[in-house]
Amino acid sequence: MLLHLSTWLEVEAYLEHSQGVIMPIGSTEQHGPTGLIGTDAICAEAIAKGVGEATQALVAPTINIGMALHHTAFPGSMSLRPSTMIQVVKEYVTCLAKARFTKFFFINGHGGNIATLKAAFSETYAHLADLNLPHADNVKCYLGNWFMCGSVYQLAKELYGDKEGSHATPSEVALTQYVYPEAIKQAPLSPEVGRGYKIYGAEDFRRRYPDGRMGSDPALATPEHGKQFYELAVKELSHTYLEFVNGE
Amino acid sequence: MLLHLSTWLEVEAYLEHSQGVIMPIGSTEQHGPTGLIGTDAICAEAIAKGVGEATQALVAPTINIGMALHHTAFPGSMSLRPSTMIQVVKEYVTCLAKARFTKFFFINGHGGNIATLKAAFSETYAHLADLNLPHADNVKCYLGNWFMCGSVYQLAKELYGDKEGSHATPSEVALTQYVYPEAIKQAPLSPEVGRGYKIYGAEDFRRRYPDGRMGSDPALATPEHGKQFYELAVKELSHTYLEFVNGE
Amino acid sequence: MLLHLSTWLEVEAYLEHSQGVIMPIGSTEQHGPTGLIGTDAICAEAIAKGVGEATQALVAPTINIGMALHHTAFPGSMSLRPSTMIQVVKEYVTCLAKARFTKFFFINGHGGNIATLKAAFSETYAHLADLNLPHADNVKCYLGNWFMCGSVYQLAKELYGDKEGSHATPSEVALTQYVYPEAIKQAPLSPEVGRGYKIYGAEDFRRRYPDGRMGSDPALATPEHGKQFYELAVKELSHTYLEFVNGE
Amino acid sequence: MLLHLSTWLEVEAYLEHSQGVIMPIGSTEQHGPTGLIGTDAICAEAIAKGVGEATQALVAPTINIGMALHHTAFPGSMSLRPSTMIQVVKEYVTCLAKARFTKFFFINGHGGNIATLKAAFSETYAHLADLNLPHADNVKCYLGNWFMCGSVYQLAKELYGDKEGSHATPSEVALTQYVYPEAIKQAPLSPEVGRGYKIYGAEDFRRRYPDGRMGSDPALATPEHGKQFYELAVKELSHTYLEFVNGE
Amino acid sequence: MLLHLSTWLEVEAYLEHSQGVIMPIGSTEQHGPTGLIGTDAICAEAIAKGVGEATQALVAPTINIGMALHHTAFPGSMSLRPSTMIQVVKEYVTCLAKARFTKFFFINGHGGNIATLKAAFSETYAHLADLNLPHADNVKCYLGNWFMCGSVYQLAKELYGDKEGSHATPSEVALTQYVYPEAIKQAPLSPEVGRGYKIYGAEDFRRRYPDGRMGSDPALATPEHGKQFYELAVKELSHTYLEFVNGE
Amino acid sequence: MLLHLSTWLEVEAYLEHSQGVIMPIGSTEQHGPTGLIGTDAICAEAIAKGVGEATQALVAPTINIGMALHHTAFPGSMSLRPSTMIQVVKEYVTCLAKARFTKFFFINGHGGNIATLKAAFSETYAHLADLNLPHADNVKCYLGNWFMCGSVYQLAKELYGDKEGSHATPSEVALTQYVYPEAIKQAPLSPEVGRGYKIYGAEDFRRRYPDGRMGSDPALATPEHGKQFYELAVKELSHTYLEFVNGE
Repeated sequence: MLLHLSTWLEVEAYLEHSQGVIMPIGSTEQHGPTGLIGTDAICAEAIAKGVGEATQALVAPTINIGMALHHTAFPGSMSLRPSTMIQVVKEYVTCLAKARFTKFFFINGHGGNIATLKAAFSETYAHLADLNLPHADNVKCYLGNWFMCGSVYQLAKELYGDKEGSHATPSEVALTQYVYPEAIKQAPLSPEVGRGYKIYGAEDFRRRYPDGRMGSDPALATPEHGKQFYELAVKELSHTYLEFVNGE
Repeated sequence: MLLHLSTWLEVEAYLEHSQGVIMPIGSTEQHGPTGLIGTDAICAEAIAKGVGEATQALVAPTINIGMALHHTAFPGSMSLRPSTMIQVVKEYVTCLAKARFTKFFFINGHGGNIATLKAAFSETYAHLADLNLPHADNVKCYLGNWFMCGSVYQLAKELYGDKEGSHATPSEVALTQYVYPEAIKQAPLSPEVGRGYKIYGAEDFRRRYPDGRMGSDPALATPEHGKQFYELAVKELSHTYLEFVNGE
Repeated sequence: MLLHLSTWLEVEAYLEHSQGVIMPIGSTEQHGPTGLIGTDAICAEAIAKGVGEATQALVAPTINIGMALHHTAFPGSMSLRPSTMIQVVKEYVTCLAKARFTKFFFINGHGGNIATLKAAFSETYAHLADLNLPHADNVKCYLGNWFMCGSVYQLAKELYGDKEGSHATPSEVALTQYVYPEAIKQAPLSPEVGRGYKIYGAEDFRRRYPDGRMGSDPALATPEHGKQFYELAVKELSHTYLEFVNGE
Repeated sequence: MLLHLSTWLEVEAYLEHSQGVIMPIGSTEQHGPTGLIGTDAICAEAIAKGVGEATQALVAPTINIGMALHHTAFPGSMSLRPSTMIQVVKEYVTCLAKARFTKFFFINGHGGNIATLKAAFSETYAHLADLNLPHADNVKCYLGNWFMCGSVYQLAKELYGDKEGSHATPSEVALTQYVYPEAIKQAPLSPEVGRGYKIYGAEDFRRRYPDGRMGSDPALATPEHGKQFYELAVKELSHTYLEFVNGE
Repeated sequence: MLLHLSTWLEVEAYLEHSQGVIMPIGSTEQHGPTGLIGTDAICAEAIAKGVGEATQALVAPTINIGMALHHTAFPGSMSLRPSTMIQVVKEYVTCLAKARFTKFFFINGHGGNIATLKAAFSETYAHLADLNLPHADNVKCYLGNWFMCGSVYQLAKELYGDKEGSHATPSEVALTQYVYPEAIKQAPLSPEVGRGYKIYGAEDFRRRYPDGRMGSDPALATPEHGKQFYELAVKELSHTYLEFVNGE
Repeated sequence: MLLHLSTWLEVEAYLEHSQGVIMPIGSTEQHGPTGLIGTDAICAEAIAKGVGEATQALVAPTINIGMALHHTAFPGSMSLRPSTMIQVVKEYVTCLAKARFTKFFFINGHGGNIATLKAAFSETYAHLADLNLPHADNVKCYLGNWFMCGSVYQLAKELYGDKEGSHATPSEVALTQYVYPEAIKQAPLSPEVGRGYKIYGAEDFRRRYPDGRMGSDPALATPEHGKQFYELAVKELSHTYLEFVNGE
């Protein structure tokens, strides 16, 4: 059940039996010469829809721009500053918490969002407590990174070994190929690729990773792999969602 | 050309011949008993894609949550506070302006966004000037409200007269029916409908407009009407976009 | 009854019979070669006092600096950023709302304030609701732009036709001449005047409108016209105020 | 020369020979049973105009609402939070500093503003340095509290002894009587008056100072005294202004 | 009793009989050629510990970085902007106020903190009132500047006369020599020293006070003097603390 | 070399040969019935000093209050909100970066700080770039969590097995016993201890972990263990620091 394709009466009815909601969050940032700028949002959204179908859960609109400041030296990358993203997440959760939602299950497609999301959760709990909402201390946010699912990680390792890398990975590219086969891109990929540098500012990042890839070989991706990743992630995160929403 | 389905190399190439970008912005808010919560985002996104195709323009990801505080007494509505939305818009535009985009064409689906967007534009111009970007004073934002296009307004008047109302209107519902025919909703609509009250806070709004409609009869909407609205809006806004992007 | 010329005991007594207050808001910005920098504040303040006298309403101090970022390339112009102005308006209204005022009637002298004021009203309603004030959802803000009064608009059209323009207009200049006849200025006005460009950043604005006027001929203004504008605006806004304050 | 009664051309001409500007700042807060709510703004504005005339200096619009949170349990009092007031002062000074003003002479009518103003000055200097304005490190703000002028203090002591008190003082009431003789108020003043408590929150303040006075007997004020205070303050602050603006 | 060397059970027990807490606050900034960068934090911390021992009061961790923007042109100086420091102080006090502390006794080692601290107190009281804490209007903050204690001031005058100066003073240097005898520094001190200039921005400060001292001769300091200053300050502030915490 | 025990001249000299600085950061929060509230700050500070001595590096003052919102239902706990802590870290780093420091090595004692610190680093890099500092893109922040050092982790496992737990752990308690043997606390520890619940809001945390421990048995700690942990952490982090500061 997608929030944006529902009516408020349907949401009201949904709240009678569940206070859980899935919040997909991605990013809009360079993903190397062949990866889509929307990769992280596409993956999060597709998997969130899959989990929503599998669990009858409500899925909120995708937060398609996240914390990607370190990618902003590549054109087309967009980012919020962390403190703005904290504010945004806080306001989204607060709106829904006032309507009696209490279990927020974030399905995240971007490693760069993790720290800021965790910070946002802390800030949100404190904010809700200050608002004196009666159920404020029942509000819980869960961070589900699809690319860190055990089954996904395992498959990526089998298929790609150390060519999975850590950005513009063949696994995420494969997933976007499965979702948008019409947008499979071709571009020359140099055999050498930046690898192993830590992430600091945007200019430094581009110097270290001149084509945007971090140790990955996305040419290995196929739509069929993407389908496998999709199904593994949906299965694993559906299980996690149900545990989360049915927990105390 | 959709930003999220492009690579950074494609964006780099695009910038060689154009500095224009389309920014769809909607809202996630109640639209009466039969209107989709995502109505404003759906309409803005669909029309933005249409304009992008017609003009070869780049289309950024849809800002799907806007300024809808007055709707938040209805479950499922989500909103940013105006000052947060200003921050968000400022950061989005700044990222792209640093990459040399200068013409930002917002296609907006929600009347409630207008004031905050205009405020955001002013704040953004001043921010860019403070950053000492070389082309800061060439950056221009345009606000294109699809529902205020002359041709759209005219058709709505012909088809619905004063039953168009001002929220959860048959014209916007029709457009969502055209885009998502699988999500056409049925629900009883009382013959009486709130009308003519000004908008203040969320509780007051719900008291005045108890089912969320503002003077509208969305039962008049059909997917065929939606197609007409879509085509008129795309045509008119494409023309406007080209004038904007080709102007000095 | 002017707030700054009242005692707190008088305000306490006033609150026994009325919860309405008039909030004049203007701007401090260039108004062409002959217009006063304080034009918008002067007009708003004078009319607000007139409405206060006509309706026995309390008039708060004039907010004399507003949102005029686009004028700041001309010396003497001052502005708040929109997000700061939102904060300011929110805090002013909150102070008075805590003292039990509920009807805030803004008399505005500057088109550039409109978007930010509307955004500020939305933000304020949400803030008051979060504070759990008992009467928070009765708080209402009204935006009364004197220059958009029907009777004012009509007279300006009759007197000046298209030489009214849209900034440093003869009508507002006339009103300041009526209020401050000792400050009527003379300066050469070129026959050609910028006209029809949209407003973006401050540098761009000055390029388009090199002497600050927007399509206007303020040389047509007279103090006698100013008196007429003043009286029309006071009459019309007094009527509107009473409707507002006596409404539910 | 009053900024709001000047044109931008006149300001441009003024800048040829002076970079100084007078910034009057007051407050809108209870001043006991007989003191005007606008007392601090009225005093600051009147003296600022006097100094402006005596020194040919430009006088900016009065900041009529300051930091008066501790008075807000009395109806009619309005206040900015300190952090908002810092932002406001910073933006005002920045606008004028960009236009090449460098010497900002604040004439202040309210003790409660002092701390926040000093903080605002520090924040502003750092902000201007970050903007890389060429003359940023020449910008200087001066805080001139009229009620702390030696000559004013001396006269108040002679006229009122310890009945001067520290809020709603006869000296400031006298000055408002001189400026607005038509607004001289009468109300019973209890012989006992709160005295000697420190200032904490608003509720506590009202408990300690139930009629709003702090150890003062404003019944001693006369318009003639007000004239004397006015003249002393204008003379002393004019001297100080000239030293400030002519200093390195 | 030092908070950082206590357990939460001990704090809980402490709250049974006292709601007072000592908050040491210093700064991290240049103190001339021979003064320690931590001078203000060292002094505040040492004296706070002494007062805590003498009065059985709880001592919170030292805020070791304060408002020292004007010193930041000297390497090693660190500062918060005033508005950030307000936020920090507000959050510290709020945490402890929620745990039922009501009397906050700040022992301050830096003149530059005074304005911002006072502003922070005002902002905090208003914030606590907005949170609807039951005891919000009993919360009181006291600002105790050790260097302004009467007995300290007297001794400094006797020992150093006008060579005390106003920054990098022999009295504060002496106190650090007493606390950290192993860190007594030697460096040439020019006989001429900047004196009497007001404080504006950081670059201007360094121009006026090229070695960082303000009219002082810290070569006069001895650890024995430091012991005397320490004992005087502890004695006087202990007395003040007890009055404060035992007052209504 | 401790910053607070240095002079600005010494810092200036230091900068001639190194641009590295160690930033200790802890927290002020409950650590179970026997753990010190300052545990995380004490550990970070002690280890930072050790690393500073071993590597001749400059050590900045300890940030002794961090992000501990989830502990604030226990008295004595203090916390910044994440967005405030981001601001604080940004301003500290910015001050030092303007003085030409480029390598910031954070030694962290608190797991709850990690997300916010990472977010702060991202925000800081972007801020420095916006300031146009010449060396902005060389600024690098490193997060060194002492409790996650391989050698520390190994020893804790050997000594305590699963009784190490994840908060109020014997390893951190041991380290504080080594540093402050005079502050070793005794209190009954129930054999059952909360374990395995995720962290959400403060009230929920206290419900799950009623005495503040998370699965740990701090009674196993000894000062001798503490010495071992200290030495391992200093050795490992000294090595890491040198790699970091000597890297490109």
